[in-house]
Amino acid sequence: MTDKIALTPKTHTTPPAKFSHGVKKGNILQVAGQVGFLPAEEGKPPTPAGPTLREQTLQTLANVRAILEEGGATWDDAMMIRVYLTDTGHFAELNEIYDRYFEEQGLTQVPAARTTVYVGLPKGLLVEIDALAVLD
Amino acid sequence: MTDKIALTPKTHTTPPAKFSHGVKKGNILQVAGQVGFLPAEEGKPPTPAGPTLREQTLQTLANVRAILEEGGATWDDAMMIRVYLTDTGHFAELNEIYDRYFEEQGLTQVPAARTTVYVGLPKGLLVEIDALAVLD
Amino acid sequence: MTDKIALTPKTHTTPPAKFSHGVKKGNILQVAGQVGFLPAEEGKPPTPAGPTLREQTLQTLANVRAILEEGGATWDDAMMIRVYLTDTGHFAELNEIYDRYFEEQGLTQVPAARTTVYVGLPKGLLVEIDALAVLD
Repeated sequence: MTDKIALTPKTHTTPPAKFSHGVKKGNILQVAGQVGFLPAEEGKPPTPAGPTLREQTLQTLANVRAILEEGGATWDDAMMIRVYLTDTGHFAELNEIYDRYFEEQGLTQVPAARTTVYVGLPKGLLVEIDALAVLD
Repeated sequence: MTDKIALTPKTHTTPPAKFSHGVKKGNILQVAGQVGFLPAEEGKPPTPAGPTLREQTLQTLANVRAILEEGGATWDDAMMIRVYLTDTGHFAELNEIYDRYFEEQGLTQVPAARTTVYVGLPKGLLVEIDALAVLD
Repeated sequence: MTDKIALTPKTHTTPPAKFSHGVKKGNILQVAGQVGFLPAEEGKPPTPAGPTLREQTLQTLANVRAILEEGGATWDDAMMIRVYLTDTGHFAELNEIYDRYFEEQGLTQVPAARTTVYVGLPKGLLVEIDALAVLD
């Protein structure tokens, strides 16, 4: 039997429901939908990194990365990144932020696949990202 | 060669197109997007469990679970649950229903990761859920 | 160490950001969100196959298939197909196109699971599709 392990970075806010921020079983790692919440502070409600797409996207990517690392993975192991935006007008800026971010990550493997769609998100949130990784 | 097996609970309505309600290949099990349709009845069109979020969500989760079980899996094997709602105003109630449901399922492992986004669905449907599971 | 391989059919337009059209690692193959862009032509911007749902869906499916094939897979290996439409009014037509297409593909295994939701897409695009495959 292979256990399913919860991946819960210390910095993360408590999920609003009975789900894990990330799980790993065997060589499969799944990251739950992350948003741009700053590291949790005792007694404060979850707070987005800022009102801009840039601030929220960078914080969201940091949150996804923390979960990958909690499971012993890196961006190099990511197979699929799902990006949920709220406004098609954000696509170009998201791509610019995304590209710059990944250039700085020092990937040694090819980038993950990606799907970007435009959905509704709770008020104040501009981006949500989840990821599927396959470890060695 | 590893066969891909279709998972088709007897209670399920016929899919509206050439897709499987669930498939399993090796240790990977994928559940197609389920909605809150009641068990199929001969000669009747697919009918949602009720007009409320609670009725539809519980029926949808039952429909996902039936497919997991058809493949020899349980909620404990679920890695990722994708929840599609139509209204951000439903988030709190969905979480309450979701938590209560999973408390009653007697999970022995950590809960699956989850992503929740707000999309359009066909008229009358308030929630759609799919799931990825990894078996032992 | 298992390498993650990028799957980039020659016909495909350059992705608008640092992601791969498809990746394969071990027996897992993930296809990025594809739209109905015609085969790339030097010096021309990406152009959809046509304005209709039929034209765009068939081109999108061809684009997904090209990535599967680049990874040594076929539709028979597809476990999950995610269809993003922009209009619930397109569901019946999408299903008719989808069924006809897959009848012509000569599948030897059961069809993949599928989730269809309605989202926003960039102007002019009516459908986006991604896929997860598990190879033998």
